[in-house]
Amino acid sequence: MDKNSFFWKMVGGELPTPACAATLGIGFIQIDGERGIVEVSFEAKPEFLNPAGNVQGGFLAAMLDDTMGPALTATLDAGEFAPTLSLNVQFHRPAKVGTLKGVGRVVTRGREICHLSGELSQNDRIVATATATAIIRNM
Amino acid sequence: MDKNSFFWKMVGGELPTPACAATLGIGFIQIDGERGIVEVSFEAKPEFLNPAGNVQGGFLAAMLDDTMGPALTATLDAGEFAPTLSLNVQFHRPAKVGTLKGVGRVVTRGREICHLSGELSQNDRIVATATATAIIRNM
Repeated sequence: MDKNSFFWKMVGGELPTPACAATLGIGFIQIDGERGIVEVSFEAKPEFLNPAGNVQGGFLAAMLDDTMGPALTATLDAGEFAPTLSLNVQFHRPAKVGTLKGVGRVVTRGREICHLSGELSQNDRIVATATATAIIRNM
Repeated sequence: MDKNSFFWKMVGGELPTPACAATLGIGFIQIDGERGIVEVSFEAKPEFLNPAGNVQGGFLAAMLDDTMGPALTATLDAGEFAPTLSLNVQFHRPAKVGTLKGVGRVVTRGREICHLSGELSQNDRIVATATATAIIRNM
């Protein structure tokens, strides 16, 4: 964890929110950069809907990627980044246009390989869960 | 497969492209509704980029969901739909703003449970691959 890292400068308003996160309407509720846990919010827009009127699963996957990613990047030093190698998502129930809450955790953090988990809920009901593997690299 | 289904009416222009697919800039290149194979294109936009200037993995996951989904929905009868239960994505190399190509296949099609696979490439190089499980339901 390094308050001079990209992530903390972004959270502190010194750097802009990444375009992908802005598209998903991200908001940071709580960040624990020591333990690698974040609580975030998203705004599901009509542009994310499938023909059934629910948020397309892929956009929920994008939200989960942007939940677990920050949990890890909050722990990184300046000059480090951590691309996702794999992402596994389970869909539990449909999500509608509106606010979703994401909780992301670093489950294990190796020197390079990190395993992450995430949960996405709407109106306090679990919508989708995920795990991911990421690798820490130097820029 | 049923040319009166939502999917074929959409491909034929009788029904609009789903919002999520339009957001991802979908285009249909080839559709085999008998075998459950589709070839589609996507347009990655600057709004999908992460701070490294690459398409965020979650948006690639959304494209893969919208590659495998149509492979299955192309085979469905009118009144059927097939929500995704789980989605597993592997990320092979970064993708940039621009066109991506997706190939989706129904690997096995049970009475209810279907297993799908998908590949996403850019400039003829594999960017991400995925598998998914979906369940056929009646509206």
